[in-house]
Formats: sequence, structure tokens, C-alpha cells
Amino acid sequence: MKALEELVGILARLPGIGRKSAARIAFHILKSDDQYAALLAERIGALKNQVRFCSTCGSYTEEDPCPVCSSPVRDKTVICVVEQAQDVMTIEASREYRGVYHVLGALLSPLDGVGPEALKLDRLLDRVRDQAVSEVVIATNPTVEGDTTALYLKKVLEGSNARVTRLATGIPVGGDLEYADRLTLARSFRGRVPL
Amino acid sequence: MKALEELVGILARLPGIGRKSAARIAFHILKSDDQYAALLAERIGALKNQVRFCSTCGSYTEEDPCPVCSSPVRDKTVICVVEQAQDVMTIEASREYRGVYHVLGALLSPLDGVGPEALKLDRLLDRVRDQAVSEVVIATNPTVEGDTTALYLKKVLEGSNARVTRLATGIPVGGDLEYADRLTLARSFRGRVPL
Repeated sequence: MKALEELVGILARLPGIGRKSAARIAFHILKSDDQYAALLAERIGALKNQVRFCSTCGSYTEEDPCPVCSSPVRDKTVICVVEQAQDVMTIEASREYRGVYHVLGALLSPLDGVGPEALKLDRLLDRVRDQAVSEVVIATNPTVEGDTTALYLKKVLEGSNARVTRLATGIPVGGDLEYADRLTLARSFRGRVPL
Repeated sequence: MKALEELVGILARLPGIGRKSAARIAFHILKSDDQYAALLAERIGALKNQVRFCSTCGSYTEEDPCPVCSSPVRDKTVICVVEQAQDVMTIEASREYRGVYHVLGALLSPLDGVGPEALKLDRLLDRVRDQAVSEVVIATNPTVEGDTTALYLKKVLEGSNARVTRLATGIPVGGDLEYADRLTLARSFRGRVPL
């Protein structure tokens, strides 16, 4: 059946979905009521039309500027720098951070030939220069690329009045020393805090 | 973001997709090119319009009768009885079976109050009576419901000229005795075959 096989092929390109899961999903859609399939199709189509990037920070939003950038209660003097728009939503979900954001769009990766020109830095530097930004929190992933990018940003922001900080790396809450890898353990030692 | 949250909610209703996977899929769609999202939406919408049930055997098909029922090379004297339309495709994928099918649409489940009236039996009995059917292979799952249904079918088909058989149950190919459950092991003993 062409219609089914085509959908399975398209679904199998989604992350974490193999051909078996794709077939299961396709059969589920086939068995579910017409309304569900129509709604799913409609919402997928609508997603790309309704969601755009905030022209200030680069995060996903339905209105420009985004709710965070336009909020009167968010602290505009603290900017959290993330790799991708999705990271903003992850951090927002933790309800821990009250500042604003900047999305880089990429991480430095010399091995893959990704240099500083791939990073969206102009708006960040403008904001740090023009506004009274007191702190830039670098929240790139604690990977080789994320760390390289963090060090590069620290150098670029030298000379500004903003303090440059980095999210703490260490053993996750609820984690187990036994299962922590050597690098994480080493970092959590170096980053130890007074009790 | 409403558009994103709505899609995540709808995706999370798919089998094997929790909220985290749903969010990952939604972000993937958001990041992929417009063409992919449009294609996915279009194909989901098309699926229910293009796929219907074969009026002879009840399996999924785009033309009625289905390619199996209308094929001149399939053996019409052997009917394989399955629970759901999806099972036909699973069996077809094995390329082992050369007969035709009948989809019951349900399995007997006295505990859930599902009786014989829930099974689509009329077309099967018509075919067994009217055509020179020599064998009915019952391919319901080897579960309580599948076995109950198989026994019921055997009784219903008594008096016809068709031989009633059941798919073999046993240790799966590549399986390990150590990990086979007691019931499977017992069944594979009872169903042992001469070498």
C-alpha cells in the first residue's frame, strides 16, 4: 500500500523513530478516528507557520519580540547564552532563571570546520555594549564544542563590563558517584562549593 | 507557545511516544525544512482517505478487492484467519504464505464481555461454504484471547470440508531456552516435530 508505505518512510526520518515505530504510528493513525488524523495533519502544518524566531534573542516565539524579551519582570541585565532555540524552552521549564536569552545557532567545532562566523554574535555584542548588561551566563552543553564556544565567548566579551559565567558541571541530582564518568567526577571536584 | 504545545499534546497520544519524545519530534519538525512538514501533514491527511478495507477479506487496501484477493497466483483454497488488518501486512512481510486472508476484527474475550457477535465471521463462513476451501490456518496471537478464538473457530468450522490448523507456538528462532517462559517451553515440547 503506497499511502501507508510513504507515511512510514516519512515518519521514520523523525528522531528516535525507526521503521517499526513508524509503522506502529501509521497503523495507530489508520485505526484512530478521522478527527485525530485531521487534527495531527493540521497542527503539523500550522507549526511552521505560527512559530518564528525572536528578532532580539533568537528563541522560538509566536509573537516578536518573544514573551521573555518583552516581559517587564525579566532581568534584562543578565543574558543567558544557549546553542539552540530549543534550549531556551528547556531552561524556562526549570523556572530557575529570571534573566533574558541569546541563541547562538551553532557551536564552534574546529574539527567539523565550524568557525566563529557560524555563530550569531552581532546581536549579543550589541546588547552587551548598548545595554547595562552585568552578567553573561554561558549555558552551552558541557561538551568539547560547548566548552570551546564558552572559552571563545569569554575572550570576545573581555573588555565589556559584563561578568562572564558558565553553568556548573557535576554529578546530576539523584545521580550516583559509582555511575559518574571520570570527567564529570573530575569537574565536580574542581567545581566543589563550600557547604 | 501554543502551536508547539498543542502539537506535542497530539503527538504524545501516539503509541510509544511520551511527552519527551513528542517534544523532540515537534522540535525536529520545527527545525526541518518547510517541505518536510508539509509532506508529513499531507501524507497523514491522505492516509485515511486512500486506505480502506477489502470487502472480501477485510485487510487494508487502496483498491477493492485487495491485491492478495485479486491475485491470480494466490491459493484461494487456503484462508489464513487473523485478528486485525495489520496482521495481514506482518504475515505478507514474511513472504512465507501463498494463500488468502480473513480479518476477524476482534478476538473473543469473555472477561471483557467480547462474545462471538463481535467477530466478523459471515464472510469467512460464506467463503468456506461457497468456495472449495481446503484449509483454514488460524493465525491469532498465542494468548488466552487468541487461543479461545481459535478453539471457537474450530467448532464453528466443524462439518465443513476445510482442515483447521493453527500456527506453531514455540521458542523463537535465535531465542534462548534460558529466557523462554514456562508456557512457551511447554508448548514447544507438545508441538515438537520429527527431525
